[in-house]
Amino acid sequence: MRIVSLDVRDIRFPTSRSLDGSDAMHRKPDYSCAYVVLGTDSDAGVEGCGLTFTNGRGTEVVVAAVRALEFLVVGRTLEEIVGDMRGFSRSLTSEDQLRWLGPEKGVIHLAAGAVLNAVWDLWAKVEGTPLYRLLVDLEPEQLVGAIDFRYIEDALSESDALALLRGMRAGREERLAEIIESGYPAYTTSAGWLGYDDAKITRLVAEAVAAGFTYVKMKVGQDVASDARRARLIRESLGQDGTLMMDANQYWGVDEAIAAMRVLGEYDPWWIEEPTSPDDVLGHARIRREISPIRVATGEHVQNRVIFKQLFQAEAIDVCQIDACRVGGVNEVLAIILLAAKYEIPVCPHAGGVGLCEYVQHLAMFDYIAVSGTLENRVVEWVDHLHEHFVHPAIVRDGSYLAPTAPGYSIEMHAASLDMYEYPQGAVWNQPDVVGASLGPD
Amino acid sequence: MRIVSLDVRDIRFPTSRSLDGSDAMHRKPDYSCAYVVLGTDSDAGVEGCGLTFTNGRGTEVVVAAVRALEFLVVGRTLEEIVGDMRGFSRSLTSEDQLRWLGPEKGVIHLAAGAVLNAVWDLWAKVEGTPLYRLLVDLEPEQLVGAIDFRYIEDALSESDALALLRGMRAGREERLAEIIESGYPAYTTSAGWLGYDDAKITRLVAEAVAAGFTYVKMKVGQDVASDARRARLIRESLGQDGTLMMDANQYWGVDEAIAAMRVLGEYDPWWIEEPTSPDDVLGHARIRREISPIRVATGEHVQNRVIFKQLFQAEAIDVCQIDACRVGGVNEVLAIILLAAKYEIPVCPHAGGVGLCEYVQHLAMFDYIAVSGTLENRVVEWVDHLHEHFVHPAIVRDGSYLAPTAPGYSIEMHAASLDMYEYPQGAVWNQPDVVGASLGPD
Repeated sequence: MRIVSLDVRDIRFPTSRSLDGSDAMHRKPDYSCAYVVLGTDSDAGVEGCGLTFTNGRGTEVVVAAVRALEFLVVGRTLEEIVGDMRGFSRSLTSEDQLRWLGPEKGVIHLAAGAVLNAVWDLWAKVEGTPLYRLLVDLEPEQLVGAIDFRYIEDALSESDALALLRGMRAGREERLAEIIESGYPAYTTSAGWLGYDDAKITRLVAEAVAAGFTYVKMKVGQDVASDARRARLIRESLGQDGTLMMDANQYWGVDEAIAAMRVLGEYDPWWIEEPTSPDDVLGHARIRREISPIRVATGEHVQNRVIFKQLFQAEAIDVCQIDACRVGGVNEVLAIILLAAKYEIPVCPHAGGVGLCEYVQHLAMFDYIAVSGTLENRVVEWVDHLHEHFVHPAIVRDGSYLAPTAPGYSIEMHAASLDMYEYPQGAVWNQPDVVGASLGPD
Repeated sequence: MRIVSLDVRDIRFPTSRSLDGSDAMHRKPDYSCAYVVLGTDSDAGVEGCGLTFTNGRGTEVVVAAVRALEFLVVGRTLEEIVGDMRGFSRSLTSEDQLRWLGPEKGVIHLAAGAVLNAVWDLWAKVEGTPLYRLLVDLEPEQLVGAIDFRYIEDALSESDALALLRGMRAGREERLAEIIESGYPAYTTSAGWLGYDDAKITRLVAEAVAAGFTYVKMKVGQDVASDARRARLIRESLGQDGTLMMDANQYWGVDEAIAAMRVLGEYDPWWIEEPTSPDDVLGHARIRREISPIRVATGEHVQNRVIFKQLFQAEAIDVCQIDACRVGGVNEVLAIILLAAKYEIPVCPHAGGVGLCEYVQHLAMFDYIAVSGTLENRVVEWVDHLHEHFVHPAIVRDGSYLAPTAPGYSIEMHAASLDMYEYPQGAVWNQPDVVGASLGPD
């Protein structure tokens, strides 16, 4: 089977109208994505789908970057790609001229992630199995053969990775059966966006508790007094047995983060997420030391395995929040999951954004079944927005993700949604009340 | 004066034909740039010019990112911008939706750098002075008012920065006179590109020595035995009194770098540059500890002030190689120069690429006159390619950069060059032997 085309579209949802997704640094997000379809010459018409999540303006830049990668993908057969997944991923992430744009970070890496994810979707569809099952069924040598160990070998060698995977072969079938039976625990962020008023927050927390969630995350930053008031409200609705997480979305400097968490610690947060710049390994390490026992989480803006490696080496975080798009697709996610296992840091994937819940359920389930073997201190974010646009949406019941059953990576969107939300020509961007929502500054 | 237009063009030079600029990770570079012109409503027709250096393929992605920033720039007056340089730079680097593409790294930050540099060029032209003189003449409060201290305040506060600048006011006129009289010391990289054969390298080193250079840099990586042979050749031409630097361009992992430098140390390198990933602060720190007294340099791929801050905090480098494009323009360069001064690390700017020599001469001269006050252990890279395309090219005589005299940031290119090299429509890209040089994989 040969990849014969790469199509990429700029898809934007006008979420800034309702302030869904609003936080201290992203006050008016329009959840968006660069959506990739790899066409093949198969008689069955099978296609690989992938997307990379963006935040509105600038999606066209990621679209341009995906197009810049096209010549590395179109014309290749699926067989040669999966026969050398490591080489294929490096051909995208370290291309001789394009790597200047990163390397392995920012726009060009977001684009590589979308393309690599589309390849994995294609592979899983061809195998007729959900992505997480494909990963669980691969031999340790195949999984390791998909990983680029450049720059991480001082922390995780190929033989370390093989030993980790082989060591977790026992009990795999039981854990698979358990996931199919019970799903994977979720937590909700939908209740605590910064732009919501107090009444809406109280109502949403009560609804979340009624729906079976015992973990709730709130946004903080900007104003500690206001954060404390909202934390008290949420804590009252949630009860002392519920688990409250806080997320500052990089608003603070290192000293500010320490000062703020000394105040907000009163509400017993299970973790503080993104207390400062995602690039600041040493800053996270210092924050963690100074606000202990409050745990520190980060990852949705961590650019690649090299920064994650250092976050682990420096004992800077307690929770690894991999993002399915920001790093170079499934390949690099595998590297990070294995690094986290080596350093015994729980992986709790980031999923605030369109398509991320669909993606990360596969990654978390694979992690449990084949790498970590435990659910302790592990929950996957759930954000209940925009799932209706997916052909096989993620489903959460009683506070847990159900195991996906359709072949692939669950990321294929409905054709009607793509047409409706394509920017700028889609109908939703040509209604008077929407035009301009994603065009100008706040 | 109001900025009324932002024009951006994709300019590429087919340098891969001669392997100028070739190194271990960039074997066939086409030196390129996204070239920005800010038009104004001034009667005199003054324009601000800026560029961000790229490596061929993918320049169009940076062009798209510059266009995404246009709405933040066009319509603003120069007066309001320079009245709040910090706020203006943050409006570009932390825009609510666009920051998802970075934040402050990769393509979107390369684009912000080009735009901010164009604003500084415009300001210096309006003042009728070369950029370095504008910087030297600004009050410490104005310089500090151009810097975004977010995420670096734990290492350098606003008052630290003010104290550093005020402490170096004395002797400023003497240092300025000295720079105008004697220039700023340069070193050459043009002799040692990896793609050159031994005879060409020997000839070029002899020519460099004859031209007054006592510092020569060679590319290493890929094959230690071959590197050692070339180092011996260069050392023989250069003599034991000459200074040899080595540059691995990120080719190695941490352990590989240590092993390679234990071999190459025989040729007495003054520094090893980019021994591993630019993201690996802890890796650089370990390499530095283990190969001492060989010094460690990095910076051309360091994405922003947050990584530089940590390289200083972790005592990971001996030499700070700021890049004038990769970080967010003059504003963030000021932050990094001041951080380096606080940690007493010499700044030796990166200049391998089109336009970088033109830019960084201003930064190095400002650093000497107003911040560091010393030339000890400080040299600026000089690469003798492509200067003929600039209206006011950088000039090196007897191994030193001459102080620029024309108003602005020296980055304006000839109209004929822009037309000739614009990709893909320029004449140089439509000659049979050139077409495709920047299109396909190697």
